[in-house]
Amino acid sequence: MILINGEYKEHIEVVDRGFQYGDGLFETIEVNNGQPIFLDRHLDRLKAGCNRLYIPFPNNELLITETKELCKHSTTAVLKLIITRGSGGRGYRQPDIILPNRVLSLHAFPDYPAAYKEQGVTARFCATRLGLNPALAGLKHLNRLEQVLARAEWNNPAVQEGIMMDMNDHVIEGTMTNLFYIKKGSLYTSSLVQSGVAGIMRSIIMTLSSEHHLPAMECSFSKDVLLSADEVFLSNSIIGIWPVNQIANTSYQVGPITRHIQRWLDNFKNEALRM
Amino acid sequence: MILINGEYKEHIEVVDRGFQYGDGLFETIEVNNGQPIFLDRHLDRLKAGCNRLYIPFPNNELLITETKELCKHSTTAVLKLIITRGSGGRGYRQPDIILPNRVLSLHAFPDYPAAYKEQGVTARFCATRLGLNPALAGLKHLNRLEQVLARAEWNNPAVQEGIMMDMNDHVIEGTMTNLFYIKKGSLYTSSLVQSGVAGIMRSIIMTLSSEHHLPAMECSFSKDVLLSADEVFLSNSIIGIWPVNQIANTSYQVGPITRHIQRWLDNFKNEALRM
Repeated sequence: MILINGEYKEHIEVVDRGFQYGDGLFETIEVNNGQPIFLDRHLDRLKAGCNRLYIPFPNNELLITETKELCKHSTTAVLKLIITRGSGGRGYRQPDIILPNRVLSLHAFPDYPAAYKEQGVTARFCATRLGLNPALAGLKHLNRLEQVLARAEWNNPAVQEGIMMDMNDHVIEGTMTNLFYIKKGSLYTSSLVQSGVAGIMRSIIMTLSSEHHLPAMECSFSKDVLLSADEVFLSNSIIGIWPVNQIANTSYQVGPITRHIQRWLDNFKNEALRM
Repeated sequence: MILINGEYKEHIEVVDRGFQYGDGLFETIEVNNGQPIFLDRHLDRLKAGCNRLYIPFPNNELLITETKELCKHSTTAVLKLIITRGSGGRGYRQPDIILPNRVLSLHAFPDYPAAYKEQGVTARFCATRLGLNPALAGLKHLNRLEQVLARAEWNNPAVQEGIMMDMNDHVIEGTMTNLFYIKKGSLYTSSLVQSGVAGIMRSIIMTLSSEHHLPAMECSFSKDVLLSADEVFLSNSIIGIWPVNQIANTSYQVGPITRHIQRWLDNFKNEALRM
């Protein structure tokens, strides 16, 4: 089910710059009990992304209305919200008047086993590296070939996520998740100044941890540092938090701090749902 | 005028991975006297790109047939040929069976003044940097946000091209062109191992120069090296060769070697047209 600029359709113009150049941004939102969770945060990030790419941000109320219209059709789902720079001629130059396109689509919620959240998941290192590019770092933009190539590296269903490094051998994130690790009681996550996607779940976890006097430190770290961590977990808006029980040949326990953070997040989400 | 998988249409499925992730490649081809110039070379590059991205290459004869079908409608035009990984579900993982989409579109040939080819053009340096990513370097893929941001940096019609550097301060290319320079009788062009698009016109120029005992050396060079060059020129499949007469505050003469290479290219193109 797809809503394009407020109309139910399944096709977009070929001249849309999202198709031509990946010239746009997206959000992936959990729909729970018919409610788009953390919608305000997703829209704030989308607005900030539009500002960085000089795409005029569509009206916030309009996006909320369209989101609610689409969410009527499902109680549990994934909502994907794409904003592109709209139609444009051939050539990279943007049109003088930019009329962004809004594409909202509803997808089945993935049926991940509950064990992923409880006993953790297995990850691998990807050979595909993330490029370094401060102009695009942090944004959830539509240029996602790196993730496509990384995700194509494995087919083994026993491996749930691939971890990506940048060109400088710094661990950045999973193909679809952000990454945290715990060492000697402290919480760390990758700096996303040169590459990576600054996830909504990542920012919520950082806020909650900080409120519980466990501030996450953003830093650059290597594969070896990650492999010697005490606990590792992954996050995104759909999975919440998945502890990692194995990366390549290294095993981890699902430790007490990951459990705490999962609980803080569960409580926070339940509050959001009650509002 | 747009041909999608052999049918005249103007819309593509929203679930096409080109729209979702920029998961595809493209070619920009000059149509001259109803003929797509250097079509075989463009198809060869497209095939090589598909191999690198694990997209099954559509049948070559089919692409030629569709190209000719579209070219019937115009004697002078720009043909854009896009191949995407086809439809796919939400998520970066590619479908088990990949059915690529072919999107061919015909565009008006840009009315660049003849003076650009003769007296040269003015260029500027872009602040937007090209990311470093060997996995994607050289490919003419659909992830083109860097070029969009770079091209959005200026609106002055007196500036015809913006020159982009990578994160290491190496000069790589123009937003829509490859770049060559001449110093003390030798020809140089940027190495495209870590970023940039390996243009068809660039490769033709390199072949022709080599045949005339002036091999182009691929190397890494800085802004300062470029500014101290004797001659500079830009190339792509639509413009051919544009000498550069100015970059920022530095002026260049349109030198004899650029003129030679322009002549070699004109002759080579005329031969291709006669075939």
